[in-house]
Amino acid sequence: MSKSIFYHAGCPVCISAEQDIISLIGVNNVEVVHLGNDRNKIGEAENAGVKSVPALITPNGNVLHLNFGASMADVKG
Amino acid sequence: MSKSIFYHAGCPVCISAEQDIISLIGVNNVEVVHLGNDRNKIGEAENAGVKSVPALITPNGNVLHLNFGASMADVKG
Repeated sequence: MSKSIFYHAGCPVCISAEQDIISLIGVNNVEVVHLGNDRNKIGEAENAGVKSVPALITPNGNVLHLNFGASMADVKG
Repeated sequence: MSKSIFYHAGCPVCISAEQDIISLIGVNNVEVVHLGNDRNKIGEAENAGVKSVPALITPNGNVLHLNFGASMADVKG
């Protein structure tokens, strides 16, 4: 299975969801991207369909928005 | 690991998320509950913190609301 990508921005909702996702699918199956630190990946996330964080891109390219931490507009500041 | 519970109500967003979740965490690790068919489980879902469907209850009791299909008010009709 190729990896999922978990996009977040460091908010409390994000961190909680990150722990849940890692626990559910395994740390080796998910790449975690912190858009606050890796700001050059914001465009990549938007192209993948991410509207808010935290969000998980599945290996087949679907986007799962998990709870609601912040909109991409907030992430971009 | 104890099972996660995936609550949904048959909406297209729910079915899509169900397939993603089963693919990510494995069909044996998640119990799928269709609240439209199992209406007596609506109270159980609400007590677990489900505000909208689809939603996943993790083994440690956290609620992950995935995308947005329908509010619990809609599910209750």
